[in-house]
Formats: sequence, structure tokens, C-alpha cells
Amino acid sequence: MQFSSDNWAGAHPRVAEALTRHASGFAAAYGLSDLDRRIGQKFNDIFEREVAVFFVGTGTAANSLSMAALSRPGGVAFCHREAHLIEDEGGAPQFLANGIRLEPVDGNLGKIDPQELDAAIRRFPPEFVHAGQPMAVSISQSTEIGTVYEAGEIERIVETCRRHRLPLHMDGARFANAMAAVGQSPAEMTWRRGVDILSFGATKNGCWCAEVLVVFDPDKAVDLPYLRKRSAHLFSKSRFISAQLEAYFADDLWIETAAHANAMAAELQSVFEAAEGTRLAWRSQANEVFAILDRDRFKALLEKGAHFYEWKTPRFAAGLVGENEVITRLVTGFATTPEHIAEFAALLEKT
Amino acid sequence: MQFSSDNWAGAHPRVAEALTRHASGFAAAYGLSDLDRRIGQKFNDIFEREVAVFFVGTGTAANSLSMAALSRPGGVAFCHREAHLIEDEGGAPQFLANGIRLEPVDGNLGKIDPQELDAAIRRFPPEFVHAGQPMAVSISQSTEIGTVYEAGEIERIVETCRRHRLPLHMDGARFANAMAAVGQSPAEMTWRRGVDILSFGATKNGCWCAEVLVVFDPDKAVDLPYLRKRSAHLFSKSRFISAQLEAYFADDLWIETAAHANAMAAELQSVFEAAEGTRLAWRSQANEVFAILDRDRFKALLEKGAHFYEWKTPRFAAGLVGENEVITRLVTGFATTPEHIAEFAALLEKT
Amino acid sequence: MQFSSDNWAGAHPRVAEALTRHASGFAAAYGLSDLDRRIGQKFNDIFEREVAVFFVGTGTAANSLSMAALSRPGGVAFCHREAHLIEDEGGAPQFLANGIRLEPVDGNLGKIDPQELDAAIRRFPPEFVHAGQPMAVSISQSTEIGTVYEAGEIERIVETCRRHRLPLHMDGARFANAMAAVGQSPAEMTWRRGVDILSFGATKNGCWCAEVLVVFDPDKAVDLPYLRKRSAHLFSKSRFISAQLEAYFADDLWIETAAHANAMAAELQSVFEAAEGTRLAWRSQANEVFAILDRDRFKALLEKGAHFYEWKTPRFAAGLVGENEVITRLVTGFATTPEHIAEFAALLEKT
Amino acid sequence: MQFSSDNWAGAHPRVAEALTRHASGFAAAYGLSDLDRRIGQKFNDIFEREVAVFFVGTGTAANSLSMAALSRPGGVAFCHREAHLIEDEGGAPQFLANGIRLEPVDGNLGKIDPQELDAAIRRFPPEFVHAGQPMAVSISQSTEIGTVYEAGEIERIVETCRRHRLPLHMDGARFANAMAAVGQSPAEMTWRRGVDILSFGATKNGCWCAEVLVVFDPDKAVDLPYLRKRSAHLFSKSRFISAQLEAYFADDLWIETAAHANAMAAELQSVFEAAEGTRLAWRSQANEVFAILDRDRFKALLEKGAHFYEWKTPRFAAGLVGENEVITRLVTGFATTPEHIAEFAALLEKT
Repeated sequence: MQFSSDNWAGAHPRVAEALTRHASGFAAAYGLSDLDRRIGQKFNDIFEREVAVFFVGTGTAANSLSMAALSRPGGVAFCHREAHLIEDEGGAPQFLANGIRLEPVDGNLGKIDPQELDAAIRRFPPEFVHAGQPMAVSISQSTEIGTVYEAGEIERIVETCRRHRLPLHMDGARFANAMAAVGQSPAEMTWRRGVDILSFGATKNGCWCAEVLVVFDPDKAVDLPYLRKRSAHLFSKSRFISAQLEAYFADDLWIETAAHANAMAAELQSVFEAAEGTRLAWRSQANEVFAILDRDRFKALLEKGAHFYEWKTPRFAAGLVGENEVITRLVTGFATTPEHIAEFAALLEKT
Repeated sequence: MQFSSDNWAGAHPRVAEALTRHASGFAAAYGLSDLDRRIGQKFNDIFEREVAVFFVGTGTAANSLSMAALSRPGGVAFCHREAHLIEDEGGAPQFLANGIRLEPVDGNLGKIDPQELDAAIRRFPPEFVHAGQPMAVSISQSTEIGTVYEAGEIERIVETCRRHRLPLHMDGARFANAMAAVGQSPAEMTWRRGVDILSFGATKNGCWCAEVLVVFDPDKAVDLPYLRKRSAHLFSKSRFISAQLEAYFADDLWIETAAHANAMAAELQSVFEAAEGTRLAWRSQANEVFAILDRDRFKALLEKGAHFYEWKTPRFAAGLVGENEVITRLVTGFATTPEHIAEFAALLEKT
Repeated sequence: MQFSSDNWAGAHPRVAEALTRHASGFAAAYGLSDLDRRIGQKFNDIFEREVAVFFVGTGTAANSLSMAALSRPGGVAFCHREAHLIEDEGGAPQFLANGIRLEPVDGNLGKIDPQELDAAIRRFPPEFVHAGQPMAVSISQSTEIGTVYEAGEIERIVETCRRHRLPLHMDGARFANAMAAVGQSPAEMTWRRGVDILSFGATKNGCWCAEVLVVFDPDKAVDLPYLRKRSAHLFSKSRFISAQLEAYFADDLWIETAAHANAMAAELQSVFEAAEGTRLAWRSQANEVFAILDRDRFKALLEKGAHFYEWKTPRFAAGLVGENEVITRLVTGFATTPEHIAEFAALLEKT
Repeated sequence: MQFSSDNWAGAHPRVAEALTRHASGFAAAYGLSDLDRRIGQKFNDIFEREVAVFFVGTGTAANSLSMAALSRPGGVAFCHREAHLIEDEGGAPQFLANGIRLEPVDGNLGKIDPQELDAAIRRFPPEFVHAGQPMAVSISQSTEIGTVYEAGEIERIVETCRRHRLPLHMDGARFANAMAAVGQSPAEMTWRRGVDILSFGATKNGCWCAEVLVVFDPDKAVDLPYLRKRSAHLFSKSRFISAQLEAYFADDLWIETAAHANAMAAELQSVFEAAEGTRLAWRSQANEVFAILDRDRFKALLEKGAHFYEWKTPRFAAGLVGENEVITRLVTGFATTPEHIAEFAALLEKT
């Protein structure tokens, strides 16, 4: 009953198998091997256009180097108040992008409210050097709390960006889960809507360590090889990432694992809805479940072997929680099985 | 006949096997799993003292974060003129250590000359703020050109460091090869001599991607978790590095692969010594071979399928090379076989 | 009727006279002249202890280098939501302190609420590397909105700092005005309360350009000469700052100008209290006045030659302002005269 | 007999007078006053084209922000081995330009040799990410050792820059002295030759503190307001720099003081040429004199009240100096008088 996070799993068997398969032989280092090029080409196919891709080892690196690529001196980037970029990167975006400022924007259900975004940007008027200059907007898809931006919602964010001539970054640490949830193609969910740069995550969805920075206009990626190298994120045996991605994309494994994780989350949501004395904090569309529990019951579940965390109540959800209640987060993944869910359901019933 | 670099190989079969073995199941992320702790403990055993270890994905990261850990404002670090730190990290040490300066020091055979080092440090006198403040010395073991510091040589570097109250970093991208070459224990080659911080490389010697920053006085490592995180080098599924290292250390695989690579290099050196019209540029002790060839013959060898590079002639070796000659570098590794050497010897003879 | 800001004035005649007096002759550059030393000693006298002082040219530099001196990797500094450090330094603290994060803390009347501060710091628990590590707290004295921390209020902030082992910085851009307001000595208002490092501003209060970073424990200032130099803030003809400060301190000119500016502000507050249809937003104790005006009347005053700005309504004051009203800020200084006030009063009456 | 440096003088009387004249009254802060605009316009006149100018307080800031403006990730800037940028800025260029590397280039008499420059740039081939990417070339006019680039010499540097598509920066800390030496107009010495960005120094030549970053193509200066602010170099009472420059330019004071300083240096050179047992190290064209003295005689001169420094022997001059000899530097300035020279000549004769 391990629901702590989707990074507590290891790697999908087919990913491990690919690593073994590519372990022998020699190939050019630093991303110049045939395999690296083939996987690079695969991204063109997936996104239905030529893109520039940069493999890195952590989601923090993909997000921070995206910010570095968009960085301007005195730069201010706008993200949702709960965004991983602000809350969980340990200052890496600020450091790797030369001291930028991340400005929180409010919005319900983990999504930036376009009007709040517009108001936030206006607090940094052009040429008022004392406040800093807006440089980018970042959204997470799926969001930190399991929700997913609809196409129309992204379009309204993009409109606001365009009004202020700002590029849009998408943190896709759980990109596949979002795709599976809304049934859109990678292109539809990104550049066709106006997204300029994407952190494409594969680690949580079945790889050991495979994150990709995707720049939709390759002409704008000219400095990225140097940004990656100067932050020490260029792997010598880069093909070990390509090998993982080869398996990840083969036979649409990534869609399959994401859909599976989402389905497990849906089942887990049903468990909470059916159980007495609990309720969902909000409906998740991806692979995270947020449930409200009595604090004592939460502790009892932990003691009995369930693994999941309390979730800091987001500002927008402040009114949802009673005095002795906590919001908890349960994450499913490619390694979650129906048996795990059933075991948890049984435990919840008797606790 | 692939002698381009030791990072053109993949991973040792036992490393690949370990990755597969640990791919299933759940474990705490971010380096807190049992396996991570066990491998951490293994480092204490190997170095015969309690050390603080930080896993990262690239040698550039290990070196740059070492510099960041030792960094002081306006800091100047001293390395050999040919050091990887200066020549091959793309500015990462300067960037990740907040704008430090790397000052080249001369010395024969890729090793810092202690007197040159002393003179270099004296060019930055204490409290002369305009020049910057000395912050650290870094040596490579084995060096960029296959030589290895003897114990006495390290001691003389350490004496110079102590005279100026500077810590000593060792770039051990090929640490195991150096150990195998001089037959010293890890402790003897590092902290017992006065080394303060080590970049311990395992990637070139059989792993996919496993580099470890080792701090010999754990009390001085208090900021390193944050330095690693803020540069985006903390892996979520950190145990994929631990898994590689588990296999790397088991049954002394790392000693075996390093000794094998060195032996292959020795054999290759014999090939050059036996061949007509070629000679060694200098004698290597580790897994790199530097041979002087006529330029036309070098080109012919490449055309016939041998893979190795011309090596930029180091300052100290300027007199060694004739007009139409080039210094070439050939690197052996865990995946080099006697057959590769024999094949190359045959090719060399008839070219 | 110039109330735009206290940096719209030039320099006090006695400051200008000192610059002329010291313009001839030769003296050691980079802060090593006799005059520089004498002014350094003067700071010891003023603060009743040995302090380390560093002259810089801007308040932004004093604040940012204070942060740099206290900086830790992944560092988070806590300031009031309206603090100059967050709102008006154009990202300089983040940049010069290696990518730190400035975390806003709420509190009424421009002062940090100690309980809010404690809660804010607790959101960054020790060893939770993903959030960053708390590194310092900063308060402004006087505050951005003309209020002044009482001794007891500073003590409660210090208690919170000590509980979390954090140093306390004071932004004293208007330090003299605060002193004049509360009638405390420099020592009482700073290190005797627990302040560790101070940005001591003299520019707004009569100098052309003279800001001083004061470190109360000189042992902790060892890196500051390098921090100042590496950010290009070490003046060659440093004595031009010392010359200004010589005049600034002679015959307590600084106390006199600050008290005068405060008195002018008090008079201006009386004008608003006496006038019909206006009121103070809150009572200022220093040299800034915040008055609520009908927006049309505000515009009319500007058109008729009064110079002052609308003030962005702070969060805590949101309820104070009616629909067509604005909060305005009027700043007095050493160059403000009773005639300026009288002229404004007359204008207000008839507008 | 004060020849230590041209920054040991104070300010020219007319500069001091201007500061007093502008001390009263109110004017817009942060460089937006009428005076600031007028001085900005004056730069257009002086350079015979529209330029973008940014006032800062130190030469280190002008140089470092020039590098920041030209900075690219992993950037490498090329300067003469003796350049102030490398030797005397305490790491500020590296820090303020996000961790760039400054690569020394050799050349006789303090001037970059175009062939050496070309060879140095070629050591950083395009797309070889491990070495870093060339970003700019910087020359000093006049140089660190009193020599001046002829027009043809600058052109050959520019050709090399253009071949590698690199912009050219000129460190003009002693720009007026160079102009006076070669009798060229500001335009002829800069953008008409191909210089892109200039550090225009006025401090050494008669101001207290007035350095100006001049960008010849204003379209390329769009980020500079933010670069200056984020490094804390935007003065609030910016007009105190404009006031100095008003006097500096009025009636060509700057040309007059520079020509005077150069003439004093020429006279001092004659003194050394006429004296027995001394000789010039090389002929200076600007306001610095480099003379070779017996070490004992040098010490005796210091003891008898002459103030000047030993100069570290540059690489190109290694053969010029005998065993007990030192190269010394003597600097003249606007405040140097014929009486100072005569006094020194008399002292030299009897020592």
C-alpha cells in the first residue's frame, strides 16, 4: 500500500531491459550516438514538428534550465502559488537562471487564473526597473494537485502571455498522465495551443531517470547546449537516457503506464467516495488522489502500513477542511496494482 | 578498435543486472532508501573512516559542486593547466561556484609542480582584494594524461596547501585506475595524505552514470545537500545510482575493471614501443596511452577503422613532437579486450 | 511642493562643502586613506562598540550585500511583504546573494508580525532540502510606510530569529529618521536589541551618495571586502564617501536633518488632519506621510504643481480605502521647508 | 612626489564646484532629471551618433556590466594577459556576467596580438560545448602599461572579431589620455573602427566617481537598465554623476586634464632618460611611466618621500630586467604639477 509518491517506484521492466540491451558495445558520448539521434527524431514524430530536445537527469533540471533559457536580467517568472517550481525545487530555478524571482499567482484547483495572472504581470510595468522585468509564465500539466488544464484554459493563459509578450513554459513532470486524462495529442496540448517550451517528464511514469527539455522553436534553443553544460547536466553516457526512452516510447508504453496510473487513481477515488467519513478534497483527473480524513484515522492508517502523506492545505481549499481533518495525498503509478487498491480499501473500511 | 574514450562504452553487465534487480518494488526517494544508506555505509568501509557522500550524475557536477562547497567570494582555485576542470567543464565550476576563477598551474607530465603552485598562489596575496582570494587547489588522479601522483608528490602539494591554508580537492574521474596503478588503498591516496574532498568517478570504469562527491570531514558538508539541490543534481530515484554502485563494489568489481583497463593500456603501450616509426609521448600508468605518430599514418589508421583522437600537445611536451607528427590519445576501459589490442597492433604494422 | 521622494533633493550644503574641501591633495585609494579610517572610527563611536563598516554607493548595494554576507545555498530570507528588499531592488538581492529567495511575511503597519514570521519560517523545515533553507530575517527601520519598530517589537522579532538560529538584518535607508522618531541611540536600536547587520543610509538624509554596511561582529565580516569587490562596489576614490560622512556626522548634522524632516512630516500630517475630505491612511512617525484622497482631487493637486505619488494599497490597508479614493505618499527631507508645507496646505484647501 | 596612481587625487576644482552648484533644488531621481538627459545628449555629440549611456560608480562596474551585456552561457571573453579585467577586478566580471571565463591573450607592449587572439579563439571551436563559447574581446585604451593602440591596430583586432562574429569592448578607464596621445576623435577611436561597447572613465581624469558604459548601438542596450539595477549600480541621486560630467565636458576640461597628465608623464620620461643608471622599460604614450631602477635605489627613493610602486614584470618584458633591477610605475594626473616632476628629478639625481 505504497502511495507516497510516483518516484518511490523503480523502473518499468521494459525500461530495465532496454538498459541491459544497450549496455554492451561502444557509441559516441555526449548525446551524439545513433541511438541518441534516433530518440531525438522520435520526439519530432511525437510532437508532429521539428523540435529541439535536451536530455537531463532531473525534473528540477528540466524546469530550471527552461527558466534559464527564458531568463532575462532582473527577470520575474509567474507560476501558480502551489507550483513545484516555487515550492519544491530548492531554489534551483532562481540559481540556474541567474537570480530570477518566481512570483506566485492564485487560482482554483491548482490552475492559474488568467485574470490573476494579468494582474500579477501588471504589477511589474515595463521600464519600471525597480520591480524587475516579466520574463515568462509557467503552468504545470497535470498540476501539483492532479487537475488538468483544458484546452480552453491553456488558450486563455496564452492570450495573457501574448498580451504581455511573454513565453509560456509547461512543467510536464506528469505530462503523460495529463495526456491520458484529456485524450489530447502531445501537439494539441502544447505548441498548437501556444506553449513555447516543455519539461517532458518520464521518470515518474516508468523510467529510472529521464527528463527532456523540449523547445518547440529550435532556433530559440541555440544557447541551451551551453546552459546544460555549464550547470553540469550533460551526461557523458547520454545514451543511457536514450535507452530508457526507447523502451518508454516503444509500443506506446508511456501511454499505457500513464493510463494505468490514472485508472488506479480513479479506482482509489471511488474507494474514498464509497467509504464512510471520508470525502475527496477535489476530483483528480490524473494519478494523484486528494482525500480528506479525520486526523486520528489518518494516523491509524499509517500505523497499519499504508504509506501516504498529509498535503499542506492550499490557499484556495482553506474552507474545505474541518478542525480535526487533514487533506492527504495518495499517488499511483505504473507499479500500482488493483491489489494495492483493494488492500487499501479493506484497511480503510476497518480503520 | 574503439579507443576514443572510456565513456564510449556502456555499462558493465553486472551493473546492468543490478539495475534490473532493483527495478521493482518501492523505496524512499531522494537518497533515503535502505539501499542508498547501505551504499553510503560502504563508502565508510572503503575509506576506513566516516565520510559524507553525495551522489550526482556527471563528473562535471562532482567537480563543480566540490568547488561550490569550497567557494569563497572572489575565489581563485588552482589546477594544472591541462586539468579537466579548466579545459572540459564548459564553465560549470565557475558558474556553480558563483563566479570563481580557475588559475592554471604548470608542471610536467600533467602534475602540478609544487613550486609553481606556491608561486601561483603568491600572486594573490592576502587582503589584496583586487586579485581575488585563493580558495582551493585541485589535482587530478589519475591525471588527464594517464600519469599518477606518487604519495610523496601529493604530500608536497598538501604542504603547499597547508602553508596557504587552502583545502585540497582531488578529481578522481579515474580514481580506480590510479589506485590500481600505484597499489594504494583509497584512504592512503586521499585523506591520509591530506585530501579534503574527492570527486569519485565510477562512470568511466563500468557504470552508466554514477559519480560521488566524498567529503572526508562530514562536518564540512553541511551545505552540500542544498548546493546539490539548488543546482538540480538531486535525483528522485536516487537508488538507481546506488544500484549501480552496489554492483560496482561487489566482489571488488571496480578494482578488477580498473586493473583490466590499465593492463590493456600497458599492452597497447607495448604495441607502440614495438612498432616502427612510432613512440610513446610519455609513459602512462593508468588507462590512457599517448603515442606520437606521423600525421599521415594517423589519418590512415582512422580511415581503416581505428577510433582515437589527436591530443592537443601540452605546453610541457612542446619539444617532443616533430613537424609532421601528432600526439594521439588512446583510451582503454572495462570493455576493451585483448582482441581489440591485437587487431590494432596488426593494423598499425601494416599501415 | 516637491514631495515625490527624499532622493529628489541634492546634497546638504555642508556635505557639498566637505567634498570641495577634500577635493585637493593626494590620499590612498580604495578606502585606505586617513580620512577613511577616521570615519570608520567614527562609526565605532556612534555605535559604542567596534564595528566593521563597508561604504557603498546605493542602498540597494547595502541591502543586497548584507544578504550576500548572510547567504547560504538554497537560502530563504524573510522580509515584510512591502519591504524595499522585495519590491524595489530589481532582483539585486537575489542576484548578488547567489539566487536566494525572498519570502514575504505579513504584518500590520509595515512591520513584520512575529507570529506570522514564525509560521513562515516553519514552512521551511530543517533538512527538507526541496524548500530551501532559512538564512536571515530583514526588517526596515523606519519602515516603507513611515512607521517605526518600538524596542519591544524588535525584541520579539529577535526572539523568533534566535529560536530558528537566524541572523537579523536591518534596512536603515531611513535609519536617522527612525532614531529621531523614537529617541533611541544607534546602539539601542540595533545590536543591543540583537540586530546583526545594518544598512545605514545617509543618501536620503542629506548626502549625494553614501550608504554603509555595518557588521556588528567584525569577525563575521571577513568575506565582505571580497563580496563588495566582486560586485564592483569598491570605490577607488573612496574618500569622496568619507568626506560626505564627515560633514554628515559633524555637529550631529544627521540628527538635525532627520529631526527636521520628521517635523516637516508631522506638520504635513496636521495639514491633512485639518483639511476637509481627506484623512491620514495611518500615522507616520518618520518622514513619510500617507494620506487618503479622492482620486479626482489627487489629480487636480498634481495638475496644480504638487508633486507626490499614489501608493499601492498594502494588503493590510485594503479595507481603509473607499471606491474613488487613493492612498498617496508624500515624503519630506532635509530640503523641505515650512514654506513648502504652507504652500501645499493652501493648495489643498482650495482644491 | 605622489605618483602612486591617478586615483590618489581627489576631484578637479571645477568638478567640485559643479557638485556644489547642483546640490540644491529638487530633480527626478534614478537618472531621469533634465541634467541627466542633457549629459546623455552630450555623449551623442561627443561620439557623433546616438549612443545609449549608463552611469555607474566604478570602472569595475563599467567593465563588468559590459561583460554582462555581452554574456552568453559558458561564455569566454578574451583580453590581454595584463588586462585590468583579468588582474584587478577581483572576479567581478566573472560574477556579474554569470560565471564567464576570461582568457588571457599575449602581445607585446600591453596590446593584444591579433594572431595570438585568433589562435586563442580557435581553441574554443563552435559547438564544442566542453570548452565554452567565445562571447567577446576586450582591449584597453590606453593599455595597462601606458601604450596606446593605433587605428590600424584596432582595425586588425576588429577583423579578427568579425571573423569569429564576436563583439569588441574597449576598457577606456584612461580613454581621454589615449585620445590626447593619438589625437583622434572619440568616434574615430571607437565605433568608426568597430568598437561595440565602451567603458568611458572619468574618475581618474578629474572626477570623484563617474564612469559611463557607452553602447554604440542603442538597440543592443535593452537589457542594460536591468543589468545595472540587479547589480545595485543604479544611483538614486544619479545627477551627482551628471553634475561631475557637466564640469568634465565644459570647455573641454577633460581634454585639457588628460593632455596635462600626458605632458607630465612625458616630462617624467625625460627625467629618467636623462638620469644615470636608469632607463625606461618602454616608452609610454599616455599618463603612466615605466622605468627600470636598481632595487636599492628604488627603496632609497621611497624612503626619501617619493611615492610609486614596483610593477610586476609582464611576460613580454621578462628579458628587459637585470638581476637587481625592478620595473617601477609612476602615474601622473590632472593634479600633478611641474614642481612635482622637478622635485622628483632632483631627488633621483642625488639618490
